[in-house]
Amino acid sequence: MAKRNLQARGPVDGGTRSHSGLRIDGARLLGRLDELSKIGADPAGGITRLGLSDQENVAMAYLRDLCAEAGLKTETDPAGNLLVHRPRTRRDAAPVLLVGSHVDTVVQGGWLDGAYGVIAALEVLQVLHEHDVDLPVEVVAVAFANEEGALIQTPFWGSRALCGSLEDGLAAEDRTGRPVSEYLVQAGGSPEHLADAAWTPGSIAAYLELHIEQGPTLERLGLPIGVVDGIVGRTILDIDVVGEAQHAGTTPMPDRRDAMVAAAGIVLAAERVVTEHAVCATATTGYLEAHPNVTNTITGNVRMSVEVRDTDPANLVRGEAAVREECSRVAAASGCDVDVRASMRSQAVSTAPELRDAIRGAADALGLPHLTMPSGAGHDAQIVALVAPIGMIFVPSKRGISHAPGEDTAPDDLVHGANVLLHSVLGAQAPVAAWL
Amino acid sequence: MAKRNLQARGPVDGGTRSHSGLRIDGARLLGRLDELSKIGADPAGGITRLGLSDQENVAMAYLRDLCAEAGLKTETDPAGNLLVHRPRTRRDAAPVLLVGSHVDTVVQGGWLDGAYGVIAALEVLQVLHEHDVDLPVEVVAVAFANEEGALIQTPFWGSRALCGSLEDGLAAEDRTGRPVSEYLVQAGGSPEHLADAAWTPGSIAAYLELHIEQGPTLERLGLPIGVVDGIVGRTILDIDVVGEAQHAGTTPMPDRRDAMVAAAGIVLAAERVVTEHAVCATATTGYLEAHPNVTNTITGNVRMSVEVRDTDPANLVRGEAAVREECSRVAAASGCDVDVRASMRSQAVSTAPELRDAIRGAADALGLPHLTMPSGAGHDAQIVALVAPIGMIFVPSKRGISHAPGEDTAPDDLVHGANVLLHSVLGAQAPVAAWL
Repeated sequence: MAKRNLQARGPVDGGTRSHSGLRIDGARLLGRLDELSKIGADPAGGITRLGLSDQENVAMAYLRDLCAEAGLKTETDPAGNLLVHRPRTRRDAAPVLLVGSHVDTVVQGGWLDGAYGVIAALEVLQVLHEHDVDLPVEVVAVAFANEEGALIQTPFWGSRALCGSLEDGLAAEDRTGRPVSEYLVQAGGSPEHLADAAWTPGSIAAYLELHIEQGPTLERLGLPIGVVDGIVGRTILDIDVVGEAQHAGTTPMPDRRDAMVAAAGIVLAAERVVTEHAVCATATTGYLEAHPNVTNTITGNVRMSVEVRDTDPANLVRGEAAVREECSRVAAASGCDVDVRASMRSQAVSTAPELRDAIRGAADALGLPHLTMPSGAGHDAQIVALVAPIGMIFVPSKRGISHAPGEDTAPDDLVHGANVLLHSVLGAQAPVAAWL
Repeated sequence: MAKRNLQARGPVDGGTRSHSGLRIDGARLLGRLDELSKIGADPAGGITRLGLSDQENVAMAYLRDLCAEAGLKTETDPAGNLLVHRPRTRRDAAPVLLVGSHVDTVVQGGWLDGAYGVIAALEVLQVLHEHDVDLPVEVVAVAFANEEGALIQTPFWGSRALCGSLEDGLAAEDRTGRPVSEYLVQAGGSPEHLADAAWTPGSIAAYLELHIEQGPTLERLGLPIGVVDGIVGRTILDIDVVGEAQHAGTTPMPDRRDAMVAAAGIVLAAERVVTEHAVCATATTGYLEAHPNVTNTITGNVRMSVEVRDTDPANLVRGEAAVREECSRVAAASGCDVDVRASMRSQAVSTAPELRDAIRGAADALGLPHLTMPSGAGHDAQIVALVAPIGMIFVPSKRGISHAPGEDTAPDDLVHGANVLLHSVLGAQAPVAAWL
């Protein structure tokens, strides 16, 4: 898709009121999710459908077939994103209301993360097409390529490309050094025209994404719908702890500079930053490697990562500062050297109040109770938020499990969520049109 | 060497008094240590002379050459141990006073661990030979094969074989599956006659081993000699911590079962068992592996090892119990499952008071201040202790470093230690002869 023109279509009448009886086809939605879950099914459990891999390509082909059957038009952009529009919509209709997510997974991931938002977006588009609903702001569905970054380690690849924030994209490669360009060609993209995947500023009127919560909150409260008020920002701190590798039998305890003990102090201190001092929303040590990592030797050094998250940028800064302070304290107490550097910072983003209202209105009209809540996970929406207003809808995740084979959501909740997406699209027409 | 006969020779006159002016040849000792350090010198630093490898074989050949030049007789037993005796000593003279250590190293180990005790034992034997010293209890020097177990993972291979405690020895292999028998043939041993390496019970009258301390105590106190009163026993606890791998962004802190946080609690609790509660001598977490070990995922499980050491068996039991109790506490507090099992227990052993007295007497006679102290490391002596009285002499280790390229001891200390060994051999004659 070439750069879109800024062709604002003025606000027109229409919207939820006149289409309040519309519903998505629940059986069709669930059937398609089931079909899609077979693509990349991992013999070891879960789904391994890595971004820009053959499995993602097969999934995209499956989506194209669905769209063709439904009478919807598809195109693959130079970054490998699949864009879907109604046949009567001009290809360059803009600004558009973009709706979608991604279909790639992590290694042994779940069947709903991303996939649900894409299948639901296609369902919404198909319902609008079948009922020939005329809208002031045309709807385009999108399946972003390679959101997870599990194979080509550039997460949000597709949404970055579309939003013009994929710098140096062709430098990306897999862990074996195979360049992204080779994958891109197989995915139907175009390395030479990668920059053309970026849409003209202003051509996205708004973006809506439906997603599983990936956490336990909605299930615990027994609520079917989450209205996302913001997506957390995240700072990853890479920490090197350097002590001295010594004989575990002959070195008295007071003579040790044990990097394992220092690292353990940091793990617990980072947790207390949240659990005792409530400085930020989460703090997690997910990665830790010790050297020489031998039973009878005191640990010489540890490499570890602590990540902190919060929707409030100020809390994120305070969280980072608190972890750094604890590292200094541990260094002084242990005699180890502790080096801390931020290897990644992602900005927290807010959803648009008007889109939150549209989602709440849709849920209310459908009789579905809802909770306004933050998203602790990153989503394509946070990339699109850099260029357009965004809205996000959550449905419950069973036991809060995600990025794992046990990821699941009750069928009723999946259908409810897609209907909320449909009526959010309808309800957002007036405010979005008013922005143009 | 076939099974030795129990040919006790009655106590005779002689001993330290008449040979009080004897000294080892310091320059010869240091020169040989320097030569030996070239065998297996690792381009990456330190010495890699693994037990039963070509490098150990070359080192053993170097020792045989030294002995031949000195007029000493050598033989290699079926386990690859090198035994050295004076020419006039009958090959089956027994019981004998055994003196020695090993010449193998860990990967990138130091130049003195083991090697020093062997070169000093040969020096003592050569001095006794050169001065034609007649002794009630004949001295045999030994270089035990494969003490470290770094290649063939059966530590104390040679001393176990000689003491009859090498069960199922031929089942051992290297990490690639190559059987120990192939290594043994190259080392001049004999897989078919491995059991014959065991000496008849009672044929070792006593064992003396000179070794670097491998810890910082003697250097710190400015003392040249350590008189070892016991070798610590050790219990290794393998611990599995099972929590739940969840999304680090979407899982609120109270909903987590974070195996990393639980493991960190165990690391610190194990340390406090010693530093705050003084339950046993040392407690060390040297090994820890986390899964999935990914920055943005809460750790699902951790495998770790905590080892506790003490010279008092009761303290070892208390240390293990204390670590297990802390594991239970962490399990209850974290919601993680914590499984603890002892994967290795080695007995603490005591040195013979009479041999300690002989060592103290030798040091006093040489004007060398000494400290009675435990050995935190394992040694061949602890294997021999199962069948005979043992004595151990320590010299200082610079900065307490061992099993690493920085391992070192001042030349004067090395010479002092060898002279103490010589006079301990002489001083031990009377008490050892009295045991026979």
